[in-house]
Amino acid sequence: MITLDTCRQADAADPLACFREHFHIPEGLIYLDGNSLGAMPVRTPGHLDEVIRRQWGTDLIRSWNTHRWVDLPQRLGDRLAPLIGAGAGEVLVTDSTSVNLFKLLDLALQLRPGRRVILSDTGNFPTDLYMAQGLSRLLGPEYSLRLVEEDDIAAALSPDVAVMMVTQVNYRTGRLHDMARLTRLAREAGALALWDLSHSAGAVPVDLTCCDADLAVGCGYKYLNGGPGAPAFLFVARRHQGQGFPALCGWFGHQSPFEFELQYSPAGDIRRFLCGTPPILSMAGLEAGIELLEETDMSSVRNKSVELTDLFMRLIRQECPDRFRLVTPEIAAERGSQVSLAHPAGYAIVQALISDGVIPDFRAPDILRFGFTPLYTRYIDVWEAVRRLRDIMDSGRWRRPEFNIRHTVT
Amino acid sequence: MITLDTCRQADAADPLACFREHFHIPEGLIYLDGNSLGAMPVRTPGHLDEVIRRQWGTDLIRSWNTHRWVDLPQRLGDRLAPLIGAGAGEVLVTDSTSVNLFKLLDLALQLRPGRRVILSDTGNFPTDLYMAQGLSRLLGPEYSLRLVEEDDIAAALSPDVAVMMVTQVNYRTGRLHDMARLTRLAREAGALALWDLSHSAGAVPVDLTCCDADLAVGCGYKYLNGGPGAPAFLFVARRHQGQGFPALCGWFGHQSPFEFELQYSPAGDIRRFLCGTPPILSMAGLEAGIELLEETDMSSVRNKSVELTDLFMRLIRQECPDRFRLVTPEIAAERGSQVSLAHPAGYAIVQALISDGVIPDFRAPDILRFGFTPLYTRYIDVWEAVRRLRDIMDSGRWRRPEFNIRHTVT
Repeated sequence: MITLDTCRQADAADPLACFREHFHIPEGLIYLDGNSLGAMPVRTPGHLDEVIRRQWGTDLIRSWNTHRWVDLPQRLGDRLAPLIGAGAGEVLVTDSTSVNLFKLLDLALQLRPGRRVILSDTGNFPTDLYMAQGLSRLLGPEYSLRLVEEDDIAAALSPDVAVMMVTQVNYRTGRLHDMARLTRLAREAGALALWDLSHSAGAVPVDLTCCDADLAVGCGYKYLNGGPGAPAFLFVARRHQGQGFPALCGWFGHQSPFEFELQYSPAGDIRRFLCGTPPILSMAGLEAGIELLEETDMSSVRNKSVELTDLFMRLIRQECPDRFRLVTPEIAAERGSQVSLAHPAGYAIVQALISDGVIPDFRAPDILRFGFTPLYTRYIDVWEAVRRLRDIMDSGRWRRPEFNIRHTVT
Repeated sequence: MITLDTCRQADAADPLACFREHFHIPEGLIYLDGNSLGAMPVRTPGHLDEVIRRQWGTDLIRSWNTHRWVDLPQRLGDRLAPLIGAGAGEVLVTDSTSVNLFKLLDLALQLRPGRRVILSDTGNFPTDLYMAQGLSRLLGPEYSLRLVEEDDIAAALSPDVAVMMVTQVNYRTGRLHDMARLTRLAREAGALALWDLSHSAGAVPVDLTCCDADLAVGCGYKYLNGGPGAPAFLFVARRHQGQGFPALCGWFGHQSPFEFELQYSPAGDIRRFLCGTPPILSMAGLEAGIELLEETDMSSVRNKSVELTDLFMRLIRQECPDRFRLVTPEIAAERGSQVSLAHPAGYAIVQALISDGVIPDFRAPDILRFGFTPLYTRYIDVWEAVRRLRDIMDSGRWRRPEFNIRHTVT
């Protein structure tokens, strides 16, 4: 039997407990949606204000040199690199996850000429699949996106596959893929492995180098706490750099952008995957988020993540037996930092929870998604969230009409 | 003979003089680089702080609905539309100028099947040309970018041209193209007209509707004062909407992004040119800049712009006769809001000016570029800038070694 006291003791013993005060968590709110939009680090408004008032406001155009705006995408990439097991010069912070996928899928197809299939799975995040569809259409009818069930990815690595594109943690189920194994299988099949780390970077230890991954992208506004719509990142293993002609060859990827030449010549290094002018204000938001993660270590983060998700699953069994179908794998090694429950009235239940001060999110058609960001989620938050969920289920309060009004985003 | 007093009187009579206090201009600095990075509106830090602390920090994920983040790209586009003569639902604020060019060039090629040439001129900004090169490569050898001299654009509108891509104000020379005429010639030749408004939006009255323009893109961080690397915008005339399959078909362009479908179905309206998650913090910066422009009118802005550039040219003739070659057209109707001078030692002269508190910029190989943003540039600033330039030239101080150290960005 788990009690509130069990949870209080876990908080008292938590080596990461001190990080909660580095985030702004509204009083009384239990925020379990850091997998969709990470909470705001306390340091972020001040850092942005400095960038806005001093760098932009006072130093103006000179900041491209004096504050090194010009290489901020690489500098931030180098700081992010250790969090995902990448080396210096292998990561850029730039554009959106979608745009970065387009760049790297195109690179992969160039690196594997003659192979014209992008392989992915039906559990992948839709924008990943859409971007692959768009690129295939552009390249012509001989190119295609092949979609298989998650468990069939390995078997589908036929000789026509140029690149296997998998999101490491499934956005809907929270399932964590075995990056080392799938990357090895892709390599053995002659394909490249492109990983989407949107739901893992900052929450799950990732070791791109150790896994021998080829390419990766990821999101800045989830577990990296970079702010709404924060710039994304991309990774190109050093062995693949200096090859291919970038699909989106904007001036910041030119080897000499300020020579204003008429012909594009790609930079020899990771910079060739830059495109337009870097969005400095948004990048400053992500910089503060990354700085905070640099002060912790990913194995402590992972330990607490496993404990929080495990606690949530056990409390659901204890307090709400038979109410929900558990969607997320029970084996810790097979899940990320979220737990998903299925219920036919999932939408209304999530709305009722939000009105009670607990914020998870809903993913159609029936998924209640609870994200646990170890740096600001307490064990007692898990306790309290499940207690309120039980109240909603026991009272049937989720049936009220106001919980069934659909919003655009949920 | 123009005197300081002439300039003081012009400032006293300036109907836009009241706008200067809405910008943060560092004490003693003469900032003539708003055509590269606009100055910071005084309201911007507060607006961003509100978006960061209250919308992100406190309301968190709920802000997608409650603060309508979800349609911010369209809402900001609708506010920008009157500044460029576009209608509601024809403009989006999204991504970078480079990325938006890629989207619209691809759309143009789809709208003119069988025509496979992108026509542009050697005076266009390099990233425009690079993006066209990248798209052509991707589409295959039958597609190409045809580059001609600026004056030969009209003559080069042969039947294989799908789209004519021109930047309305030449970034180097300040020359203003005749949008109505070139667009009409393009239409008569069966091609579409894609205008880059980066150096005109917010400085020159633009009437896309009146000119019957098909497509346009532009930059948020120059005369729109949106902050470094602010999001860009795109325009698709209503008659061209609902057609083609977007090249960069990310989830925000899907007709139902939150249904998480496996197949991409483009939104029927302008939203189909969205791609990834909108960068809310950067967009908030641009929102403040657009709001400020809404409080003025473009014909007053243009009047003052013409007067400032004219004053600068006359003062250069008066104070620095025979020192520079004037690059910008002397006829007001043929120039934007900048004046460019050529000098073999242009780089060093610009560095000397910067060290004297006057900020223009340099464009290789020999261009000194002076931008005049009517909302915050005074007539006495023009006087003082030319006075300091004359001092530098008369004394030969630009020859000092420290003015010849090359920075990455100038």
